[in-house]
Amino acid sequence: MEQGTKERSLVSKVMDGLVTGIVEEKYGAVLPPQDVLSKEFDVSRTVMREALSMLLARHMLDVRPKIGTRIRPMRDWRMIDEDVVNWRFRAKPDPAFLRDVIEFRMLIEPKASAQAAKRANAADIVAIREAFEHFRTVSPDDPAHQAADEQLHTRIVIASGNQFFQQMAAIVRGALSASNQLVLANQVWEEVVRKHQRVVEAIERHDAVEAEAASRDLIDFAADELGNAMPLNGKHD
Amino acid sequence: MEQGTKERSLVSKVMDGLVTGIVEEKYGAVLPPQDVLSKEFDVSRTVMREALSMLLARHMLDVRPKIGTRIRPMRDWRMIDEDVVNWRFRAKPDPAFLRDVIEFRMLIEPKASAQAAKRANAADIVAIREAFEHFRTVSPDDPAHQAADEQLHTRIVIASGNQFFQQMAAIVRGALSASNQLVLANQVWEEVVRKHQRVVEAIERHDAVEAEAASRDLIDFAADELGNAMPLNGKHD
Repeated sequence: MEQGTKERSLVSKVMDGLVTGIVEEKYGAVLPPQDVLSKEFDVSRTVMREALSMLLARHMLDVRPKIGTRIRPMRDWRMIDEDVVNWRFRAKPDPAFLRDVIEFRMLIEPKASAQAAKRANAADIVAIREAFEHFRTVSPDDPAHQAADEQLHTRIVIASGNQFFQQMAAIVRGALSASNQLVLANQVWEEVVRKHQRVVEAIERHDAVEAEAASRDLIDFAADELGNAMPLNGKHD
Repeated sequence: MEQGTKERSLVSKVMDGLVTGIVEEKYGAVLPPQDVLSKEFDVSRTVMREALSMLLARHMLDVRPKIGTRIRPMRDWRMIDEDVVNWRFRAKPDPAFLRDVIEFRMLIEPKASAQAAKRANAADIVAIREAFEHFRTVSPDDPAHQAADEQLHTRIVIASGNQFFQQMAAIVRGALSASNQLVLANQVWEEVVRKHQRVVEAIERHDAVEAEAASRDLIDFAADELGNAMPLNGKHD
């Protein structure tokens, strides 16, 4: 394991040096070319390439043809490791995990809806309405249902304008897919649409109090359906 | 960039295969040795080593002498990329970022304190009290202040028992260090201690309502101090 470990720790060191330069605004908007950076850090091109690709995977850099490697605004940097989130949600859900994820969604989403009602601009409102109109046409037995549901919730969280809530959207997406697998029989579908509509219309009216209450009601409903499908030990309050 | 890209995509494929095996409980508690895995996936030992080290870094595996590579319980898997969190908080904070982080902390921590009051066991209570007793002895001009503050807040979040809140502890820690740099003049120190004490004692009495209120009051106070030190555009409500 010797050599691999040594190379990895060299990559980490270079990564750290690059990040220091970035946060200290040493490079401006665009990084110098790879061979210049390799010389600056006195490492092989392979090590530099590996370090840059780690930053790229974290949405910290952007490769643009003709322009070079652009430094992305800090709010885009991924604090959430979406791979791990997806892997966790791919596993068979156990009751404690579902309890935790509902508790978490119950915390984040109503507040994000309230902030969306306060801060959403015209483009956000159009995007949310568009996602809702699509969502209502795809019932749970439609293969496109899951994606439509996720898109609507993601757009609401994005409209909150809070970069932390936005990052949490990955976890909310995972939570939606975990609960959708278990519940959402067609008989409640109309009610599900109505409850989503209530959230969307509150945001459109910029009514933060109503948006928060409607969002809470929607998650409560999903949690109850989930509780019927599978006993959750220690329900959220 | 060809070769590096190809090798990385191979590592990703192996990683994905390993995770699939893990979530399908194919391996039991301990992974087979590296050379067995290399043969199973038909890749070089270098690629397998790299894939395993990526899972190790995400707290999904544990190397134990004599036992081998143990699979860690899913609740330990890191959904938060702590490197990125640390890098973001290392940068000069801008007002929008601080507003967002306070809004986020205001959401997570009071609820985590309430859940800690409900769910904390005897060991959690001892750990929180111990952290508080240490915290009160290190004023803001003591180099150990930052670590003591973080430890107290982290232990409260851990006692919430919710694995998502626990993962958010990394962000709360970052938020604490960002605000501590800006504020906490010694003249308010006694009041800071009193406000922490109120949270700790509510948890000890298992009083969730009071724990939540006290935690909210504490963050409000920190936000006000921060607002005095630096104008926050669009204060949280």
